[in-house]
Amino acid sequence: MDDKLMLMIPGPTPVPEQVLLALAKHPIGHRSGDFNKIMAEVTQNLKWLHQTENDVLSLTVSGTGAMEAGIINFLSPGDRVLVGCNGKFGDRWAEMSAAFGLEVDTVKAEWGQPLAPEEFKAKLEADTDKQIKAVIITHSETSTGVLNDLETINRHVKAHGEALIIVDAVTSLGAVNLPIDKWGLDVVASGAQKGYMIPPGIGFVAVSPKAWEAYKTAKLPRFYLDLGKYRKDAAKNTTPFTPPVNLMVALQVALRMMQSEGLEAIFARHQRLMQATREAVKAMNLPLFAPDGHSSPAITAVAPTNVESEQIRSVMKKQFDIALAGGQDHYKGKIFRIGHLGFVSDRDILTAIAALEATLRELSYESMSPGAGVAAAARVFAQS
Amino acid sequence: MDDKLMLMIPGPTPVPEQVLLALAKHPIGHRSGDFNKIMAEVTQNLKWLHQTENDVLSLTVSGTGAMEAGIINFLSPGDRVLVGCNGKFGDRWAEMSAAFGLEVDTVKAEWGQPLAPEEFKAKLEADTDKQIKAVIITHSETSTGVLNDLETINRHVKAHGEALIIVDAVTSLGAVNLPIDKWGLDVVASGAQKGYMIPPGIGFVAVSPKAWEAYKTAKLPRFYLDLGKYRKDAAKNTTPFTPPVNLMVALQVALRMMQSEGLEAIFARHQRLMQATREAVKAMNLPLFAPDGHSSPAITAVAPTNVESEQIRSVMKKQFDIALAGGQDHYKGKIFRIGHLGFVSDRDILTAIAALEATLRELSYESMSPGAGVAAAARVFAQS
Repeated sequence: MDDKLMLMIPGPTPVPEQVLLALAKHPIGHRSGDFNKIMAEVTQNLKWLHQTENDVLSLTVSGTGAMEAGIINFLSPGDRVLVGCNGKFGDRWAEMSAAFGLEVDTVKAEWGQPLAPEEFKAKLEADTDKQIKAVIITHSETSTGVLNDLETINRHVKAHGEALIIVDAVTSLGAVNLPIDKWGLDVVASGAQKGYMIPPGIGFVAVSPKAWEAYKTAKLPRFYLDLGKYRKDAAKNTTPFTPPVNLMVALQVALRMMQSEGLEAIFARHQRLMQATREAVKAMNLPLFAPDGHSSPAITAVAPTNVESEQIRSVMKKQFDIALAGGQDHYKGKIFRIGHLGFVSDRDILTAIAALEATLRELSYESMSPGAGVAAAARVFAQS
Repeated sequence: MDDKLMLMIPGPTPVPEQVLLALAKHPIGHRSGDFNKIMAEVTQNLKWLHQTENDVLSLTVSGTGAMEAGIINFLSPGDRVLVGCNGKFGDRWAEMSAAFGLEVDTVKAEWGQPLAPEEFKAKLEADTDKQIKAVIITHSETSTGVLNDLETINRHVKAHGEALIIVDAVTSLGAVNLPIDKWGLDVVASGAQKGYMIPPGIGFVAVSPKAWEAYKTAKLPRFYLDLGKYRKDAAKNTTPFTPPVNLMVALQVALRMMQSEGLEAIFARHQRLMQATREAVKAMNLPLFAPDGHSSPAITAVAPTNVESEQIRSVMKKQFDIALAGGQDHYKGKIFRIGHLGFVSDRDILTAIAALEATLRELSYESMSPGAGVAAAARVFAQS
């Protein structure tokens, strides 16, 4: 049905009505006192969301632009970086690092499996002359629904002492606990169209004092993504280049909503949505792609065997107006992904699971008892 | 009055209601057939607006990001570039070029004065061993309201034969004739919040076949701003990184409005708005900053002598809810700027001039006969 689309993809995520209406307000000038006030509030609330006193800078870029800023501002050509690769985004950061002339070493895991912290430990301990300048980790690997064990990997980085830890938190920020100051994370990049509940168009980078120290001697060329310029202007509640004004106004509203829900409640909700989705998928006898204990609260990837992923997505879209994501790169057609990130409620999961059951019936999938998925999700909701 | 603000700054520019409402629609997935269709239409209409068969690529960046992409994709460290500097933005491109290790030569003019094409001619003719790889020109210098003579400068670049011409068209595109194919412009960068009539958050870069040739051997590192990636994906009506979906939907609506008005009518309207504004300012005995014959149809800068610029802006804002722009850098407080770019009508100019007259009276400015400004603007409208 026209205008009936329900987004269950890992971004853009659904946007609350009050945020959409804020987006539709006439823009104001970004060199005005009124905009300075918005920036001041947004910056304060971004720090709250990031659980940090570090700078949190807003750029007119997508998540990839935020990660690029997070890498090029703190490194020099030839610097050795250790990149965790267990999905499309980890691979992308390795490719990006190579494009900027960094010497890239990787820790790999199969798509759908988590990175092994002990492999980082081994490489970092072996680096006695401290040549590794940064460790780059994708916290929630959007392409597979795996949540990497950032806390443990970060402990090994801290034991190394020299390397910065640079985190892609694009689908983890606002979905799972990520205490930047407590853990001592140096650079954390994220994007608007995820946990923030606003449409795409702003990238965020949180930067620690240690990273700012590295910035001073980092030699990769930069201008538009030069975070020093953003830091200098953020102190005056402004930006060096034109910010996406309407998105910033929308962000102001969305951050107020997040504050009113509370961080703990937001994390608990995502945990519950993930749990209900995974239990429902198991009850439908569909194989989960990410193992228990390593799954992302933002997205659940499913790897069906007796039924085609793309057929499922097609019926879900055409008959039930629910957009699911497909697999990426070599997993195209092999998995489908259910996004449950941002402005998603318990009801949305029941809806999606009910539609998935109906879709499976439509596709003559026989390995499940009717109603089992919805019942399993309901059980999780009743228990939590 | 609350919610009554009228934007007369050079960006963000006013946004039509139908564009604002499009912006407030629920986002859709950018990896969907529905989004591909939007991209296909938008790309086609962008080519129409740019008067070109060249690629016109859309990036999630502000205008500065678009210019950076326009420079770093086609040059290598140490390449010599010739940059026209007669305002804040020309200066910015010189600074940016230096940040990327380019060897920067400049042609300068005082702020408020146009660049002299013959100075480009002399430097380009002297470059017999073709060391100048690119000439970088700001077409409409937003900081001063000067329109540089791009057509003549470009002719000298063409006579040189080797150098690319890279154009900042941020406040000229959609305001003044800029026939990319006819003139043979290689790289033209612009931004959403100007002639496009949508809020900030998309940058555009048009790229000629000659520039793509240079791209093949250009050695500056790039990833997020790598235009080759955007070109490859644009052929499939998609983008390498997440596009600002809602802004793209808004752009679709805005481009349809522009097509329905027609290019010639749009240019004539901006010409008329500029003429009416300038005649009115003259009639009020306020000095225009840019000379006749070299003024931008996007913005009129005024350099008042017997009255304070910042006082004028303050009364205009507080009493009449009209936002004017101030001067930038060393012209802060010395000039004010009236934006008449994008979704601006004859009525808006009458309104702004009437308010400016009332403001001058409020400030006890005595060098004008009451009503002279509005009368002068009305005369222009009656004649055109």
